[in-house]
Amino acid sequence: MTAPLELAGDRLLILDQTLLPGQEVVLELRTADEVAAAILRLAVRGAPLIGVAAAYGLALEVASQPDVESLERGARALCAARPTAVNLAWAVDRVRAAALAAGADNLAAAALAEAVAIHTEDEAASRALAAHGADYLAGKQRILTVCNTGALAASGEGTALAVIAELARRSPHGEVSVLACETRPLLQGARLTVWELVNLGIPHALIADGAAAGLIARGEVDAVIAGCDRVAANGDTANKVGTYGLSLAAQAAGIPFVIAGPRSTIDPATPDGAGIEIEERGGDEVRYAGGALLTIADVPVRNPAFDVTPAALISALVTEAGVAAPPSRAAIADLLHATATPLSA
Amino acid sequence: MTAPLELAGDRLLILDQTLLPGQEVVLELRTADEVAAAILRLAVRGAPLIGVAAAYGLALEVASQPDVESLERGARALCAARPTAVNLAWAVDRVRAAALAAGADNLAAAALAEAVAIHTEDEAASRALAAHGADYLAGKQRILTVCNTGALAASGEGTALAVIAELARRSPHGEVSVLACETRPLLQGARLTVWELVNLGIPHALIADGAAAGLIARGEVDAVIAGCDRVAANGDTANKVGTYGLSLAAQAAGIPFVIAGPRSTIDPATPDGAGIEIEERGGDEVRYAGGALLTIADVPVRNPAFDVTPAALISALVTEAGVAAPPSRAAIADLLHATATPLSA
Repeated sequence: MTAPLELAGDRLLILDQTLLPGQEVVLELRTADEVAAAILRLAVRGAPLIGVAAAYGLALEVASQPDVESLERGARALCAARPTAVNLAWAVDRVRAAALAAGADNLAAAALAEAVAIHTEDEAASRALAAHGADYLAGKQRILTVCNTGALAASGEGTALAVIAELARRSPHGEVSVLACETRPLLQGARLTVWELVNLGIPHALIADGAAAGLIARGEVDAVIAGCDRVAANGDTANKVGTYGLSLAAQAAGIPFVIAGPRSTIDPATPDGAGIEIEERGGDEVRYAGGALLTIADVPVRNPAFDVTPAALISALVTEAGVAAPPSRAAIADLLHATATPLSA
Repeated sequence: MTAPLELAGDRLLILDQTLLPGQEVVLELRTADEVAAAILRLAVRGAPLIGVAAAYGLALEVASQPDVESLERGARALCAARPTAVNLAWAVDRVRAAALAAGADNLAAAALAEAVAIHTEDEAASRALAAHGADYLAGKQRILTVCNTGALAASGEGTALAVIAELARRSPHGEVSVLACETRPLLQGARLTVWELVNLGIPHALIADGAAAGLIARGEVDAVIAGCDRVAANGDTANKVGTYGLSLAAQAAGIPFVIAGPRSTIDPATPDGAGIEIEERGGDEVRYAGGALLTIADVPVRNPAFDVTPAALISALVTEAGVAAPPSRAAIADLLHATATPLSA
């Protein structure tokens, strides 16, 4: 398996991201419940990629049990897995609607075709998004990022990390380097982004999350770029917890703070950040790291998985259809209605 | 041993903070080099407490070898252990000067007397500082803090955590609660602050460092209080890496951001934050947590141990001699020249 997610007949193959970078284990999933469980425990993660996984999960569910009841039950199970990421509900809704429209006899075939379409579109979106982002950040060399937004988070090369990879390809002498926030509690930066940066051949250094603001203030960063889990209609953006703090540090230092994601991450039904539900996850994610207990075993924990960066702190929202800079309500509406623009590279 | 540091004849007893909260192991140190090594590996830590430890370390050194050469060699070894914390150099200089002034015959006795004086003054300073800080933060209930600033970091009840403890004592119905940042990479919050909050009986929750800004933005915090490793003459303050980001989040939310520390942390010889040397520590601190490898074993790491919060983002500097709010150059000079004010409680 070369991709982190692959359909193989009646099974969805998923690279178990909870075991990276130590082990590369492939999971074989056959039902919506199995896919929902993999999403919930972050074996597959990244807002766009869980959309693709959920789409395949629902298609597999109705392939084995081709009726409306299975479709609806599977859709509910998948949507409940992670409430903040909008791509998940968007992808599930697309598969569900396509299946229902096709009628009882074609339910399974239509669901599968729609899931494949979502996956293919997502790969094309990654390429287009990377080109738009690299255009916007042309000349920036020292990039700071958080969480994981590469091929492990979205189809193709991902979102924010795809922009960085494209910037690196365009830099003739390897001037592009990355500071990767480790991204506690689940360490997607330390485990996944670093692994992807090694594979991409891009120079990098890992930092504790708390070190980012000081390094930005000391002039060691030219731009910050992050992914997104949900973008409200006004540009307020939910992303991995810690992102908001990076936006404050970027603003204070006068460097660009960029959000990258496919248009499916934009939720026109959410007017602003106040309407975004923030998932609180279990306390053991904070109590432990790499299997080691870090504190008193029963210490009370608050563990919000996301935070909201106000649109006013975002220099640009980069999508496959272009860049909203700044991401005003009007600019975002334009992106949503645009046909995807041709690639610049 | 009831305190984290205690002189016992010709030995300095230190509670090994690297093993907390899992084990309570007491180290017996006899020379300046042993104390410097304990400071370097953070067995004893916290800017004020390493000042006291270093003072005793130098006194022990000249007790066993009462000559000027030992005094100077011990002073150099201790000062080299941690460059950012000013209390260390300040305490070593005091002991050295007192010993030299006393002359060859009284070197050891004078050094010991000065170290004991520093320790005693530090305990009184903690009580006064706590009272001043609790006056300033009267009515604030939900406090966020970073790193460890309690009895494990300074004599008495510490600095920022002493203020919180005093606020809690003054709150009749236990309304005071604490959000403790885990404080990667070395997890002083998860390991030490949580342990101290349990001992103090103050309700608390542990959070990932990246979660602080979002929780502050959501209105879940009334005030942020942190310790300090060095305060420049203009109020710019070096403290544990991550502190600067908290100050940005507090400013954005319009809540007080308070720095607490003894006056010995103020360095009039450093005009502003640009002059503060930031210690970079080894990469394994970031690669590992609780003994577990979190990433690729040889990943490059940046690990600044501190960052600098500009004075403009600090609502108040709380010391044993009173509060500078805001910490202007003039207000800080006044604090340095004031006689310690009587306790309000």
